[in-house]
Amino acid sequence: MNKYPILAVFLIVLSACQGPADEVAPPPNILLFLVDDMGWQDTSVPFWTERTAFNDRYRTPNMERLAAQGMKFTQAYATPVCSPTRISLMTGMNAARHRVTNWTLHKDRLQPMETNHASLQFPHWNVNGLSPDSTIEHAVYATSYPQLLQEAGYYTVHAGKAHFGAIGTPGESPLNLGFEINIGGHAAGAPKSYYGKENFGNTEAFKDSPWPVPGLEKYHGEDIFLTEALKEEALAALALPLAKEQPFFLYMSLYTVHTPITADPRFFESYLEAGLDTIEARYASMVEGMDKCLGDLMDFLEEKKVDDNTIILFMSDNGGLSALARGGQPHTHNKPLSSGKGSVHEGGIREPMLVKWPGVTPAQSQNDNYLIIEDFYPTILEMAGIDDYQIPQTLDGESFVSLLQEPSTGEQTRPLFWHYPNEWGPSGPGIGAFSAVRKGDWKLIYYHVDESFELFNLKEDIGEQNNLVSSEVEKLKELAEVLTNHLQAVEAQMPSHKSTGLAVAWPNEKSINSKEE
Amino acid sequence: MNKYPILAVFLIVLSACQGPADEVAPPPNILLFLVDDMGWQDTSVPFWTERTAFNDRYRTPNMERLAAQGMKFTQAYATPVCSPTRISLMTGMNAARHRVTNWTLHKDRLQPMETNHASLQFPHWNVNGLSPDSTIEHAVYATSYPQLLQEAGYYTVHAGKAHFGAIGTPGESPLNLGFEINIGGHAAGAPKSYYGKENFGNTEAFKDSPWPVPGLEKYHGEDIFLTEALKEEALAALALPLAKEQPFFLYMSLYTVHTPITADPRFFESYLEAGLDTIEARYASMVEGMDKCLGDLMDFLEEKKVDDNTIILFMSDNGGLSALARGGQPHTHNKPLSSGKGSVHEGGIREPMLVKWPGVTPAQSQNDNYLIIEDFYPTILEMAGIDDYQIPQTLDGESFVSLLQEPSTGEQTRPLFWHYPNEWGPSGPGIGAFSAVRKGDWKLIYYHVDESFELFNLKEDIGEQNNLVSSEVEKLKELAEVLTNHLQAVEAQMPSHKSTGLAVAWPNEKSINSKEE
Repeated sequence: MNKYPILAVFLIVLSACQGPADEVAPPPNILLFLVDDMGWQDTSVPFWTERTAFNDRYRTPNMERLAAQGMKFTQAYATPVCSPTRISLMTGMNAARHRVTNWTLHKDRLQPMETNHASLQFPHWNVNGLSPDSTIEHAVYATSYPQLLQEAGYYTVHAGKAHFGAIGTPGESPLNLGFEINIGGHAAGAPKSYYGKENFGNTEAFKDSPWPVPGLEKYHGEDIFLTEALKEEALAALALPLAKEQPFFLYMSLYTVHTPITADPRFFESYLEAGLDTIEARYASMVEGMDKCLGDLMDFLEEKKVDDNTIILFMSDNGGLSALARGGQPHTHNKPLSSGKGSVHEGGIREPMLVKWPGVTPAQSQNDNYLIIEDFYPTILEMAGIDDYQIPQTLDGESFVSLLQEPSTGEQTRPLFWHYPNEWGPSGPGIGAFSAVRKGDWKLIYYHVDESFELFNLKEDIGEQNNLVSSEVEKLKELAEVLTNHLQAVEAQMPSHKSTGLAVAWPNEKSINSKEE
Repeated sequence: MNKYPILAVFLIVLSACQGPADEVAPPPNILLFLVDDMGWQDTSVPFWTERTAFNDRYRTPNMERLAAQGMKFTQAYATPVCSPTRISLMTGMNAARHRVTNWTLHKDRLQPMETNHASLQFPHWNVNGLSPDSTIEHAVYATSYPQLLQEAGYYTVHAGKAHFGAIGTPGESPLNLGFEINIGGHAAGAPKSYYGKENFGNTEAFKDSPWPVPGLEKYHGEDIFLTEALKEEALAALALPLAKEQPFFLYMSLYTVHTPITADPRFFESYLEAGLDTIEARYASMVEGMDKCLGDLMDFLEEKKVDDNTIILFMSDNGGLSALARGGQPHTHNKPLSSGKGSVHEGGIREPMLVKWPGVTPAQSQNDNYLIIEDFYPTILEMAGIDDYQIPQTLDGESFVSLLQEPSTGEQTRPLFWHYPNEWGPSGPGIGAFSAVRKGDWKLIYYHVDESFELFNLKEDIGEQNNLVSSEVEKLKELAEVLTNHLQAVEAQMPSHKSTGLAVAWPNEKSINSKEE
């Protein structure tokens, strides 16, 4: 066990576990539970200052259980779209630096909506995603933290959605990124079907399609939802490290609640009977199926008596989908937050985050500090006691381990950045090519297409309804400077205007203008 | 013009048109407007004795306009599934006779749900659909009425869904079935996408799929709904016969309102704002888009001043879908009728039918006589004045031309038959392998799987809630005899029981038993 560097914090765990004081504590198991496209309000756990109608709609008793045992983060951020988040998670880099700024699938191919944009010429971003070697063009070369965990002796299991690299590149397989086991992960970011009876999309009609979920053949034809099948396989995969008393890292990366929004038959009917819109009843049933998976994993850890030495991190990869494919009016599904997936408004980036670290996180605690997805990289390594590593990339993320013992602190001054020189497709509030910064209570958004700004005070205006560019000119200038400095420092790619061929101006070149003008 | 046989009824038209009394009247143009999967209540035109909430929900002003100008049929029947209806329409044969009893697509291939049935072994029905020549196995060899119209001098246009024959057989193309022009018709019975922006499904992902709509390339990438594109092309196709004063037959066979249930952006928002379930708002928008197409065709006929010599028949191919994919509770979307598509209950087979024959059908009239889809074949030929034709098939349909001048008659004694020795997939009221007969107010259903009956008095129980097999034993025996005689006369195929290898008994062998026993 001498290859595991041990942190001081383990001593706390150790005493909590009542082990002999002179024995070296085992590194903790780590479960990262990442939900796809889950919004900040898609849970019965309230993440706002007030309980909302959504908190009453959704049933997530196991998230409540986890929140009761650990710490709730009310201001955890990801990026608005899946791949940038997942690459930030795996590399510790901000999206502006890693350049995987939009979602990936086909090698060397831009999204069709990007090649056809009316007025912007987009940069050739890293369409091939993450690569563990330096020879792949248009990919970010980096070492993932699962790779470092594996090298430090962890048994690393990947279950569910990967979506790290384009088809035909090494990054498409979790096995090339530090995972010992891969259950159902590949280049695509959504399943063709959630139903075992439909072979999770592996039918004749889609035989050449990139979307059907790979593996899981034993469940084909069975009456089982994808989430359940992934969980069963994940639990089976843990038998080996448990038997060997080897620490494990389980990356439980659900395909739910991403489209296709599909009724989970175990839960659907009750939501329909409650009078929900049919699509919303389907969505709620997927949320509850996700929660059951979390609960089953927690039960398993307790049964195996490893819950006291297993850290659980719960997170989502972007805001809840709201611009399309949902029931009811678009852009309303994350209220009080504005907009949803694809948007840099809070609805697209603020996530339901929970952390339980036995002996470290106080039970039923709440933490209002903001943090961002690239922070998970150094945090998880610190949790595992790994502090001496050589990696090719520059880290932007900062460990939030110190936040886990203290529910709250004073005002934060660290800036967080988002950068999306891309096109997602649908339109709506906060959707479109942009760069943005949050610092303290303030958020500045810079839209590339017309070089305009939105400035919000999030403490007073969580719904981002009042654009203060005209009245808060000094704050606008200050944040435009901070944002510009970051973008230039990381050599961020910017789109150019098709009409002039000129690159979009840096925010600080435009910061005396406002969106209203 | 001497090749057009002229019916006496044309003289009526003639006098209405104030043509010279000694001139031979031109044959009428005929527009058959067939909607896919439209239910009896999916319209603002009331087809029941009472106006329903559905009549208030849906907006079909052009159906109202057509009903005001012509005759409404309140008891028009099709079969519960698309292909049997379409083959009955094209051949004049009852489904028990033509044996295309389930939906077609792939050559020589049974549906997967049929090969896997728990207890029934299904017959090898005519999976290849309709064939214009006698060499195709597992297909019904017949001459279509469009073929006869074409031979009699009509310019025949097919626009929309064909779904007549399996892939790789002559019947897959309307051009082999008497149509001079084919717009968007092929073997498949649904589009992959209704959106021009999605190339109606012709994308890389579905390049080997049978579902994308063929042709219509000029609309690819455009912001146009499929219904609109079909209509534009259909109108363009009529330029030639109008210029030549050649009578035309336009088979306007919409893909709507079949799945994928898709928002028609021209109408969707208003239904959502009215508080409809999102899927139901999408559905209602498709219904209104269908109605706009009807209205545009009617406008066109008026503009071209041929409306006075054009017969319009409006019909659907089976009941409204209700067992799956709809908003809200299943089996409720055709109320007061029970069940929907796939079911032999009224919700699966009763159709909204309208006929306008200028000078023949009284304006704003209602006809409560029942009729069935195979009746369209001899009717349309009689309308065209074609009464002397040689065809290989035996007709079951009866012309309803005589009904078009008289809104109502006394009690009917003719039996109508349905026969479905097949499996559709979903379950629900009236769904499953069956044979059925309607005679007068009575309807007997015989379920193959357990050789049981349902007997309803439709006049008193349109919702088919009260099964009278126990109390009306004489009626049961009488109808079982009528049904058996028909099935045996047309050599209907029956399933057999997997457990015994024995064919399902004939209805009259079981008619002393009831479903309750």
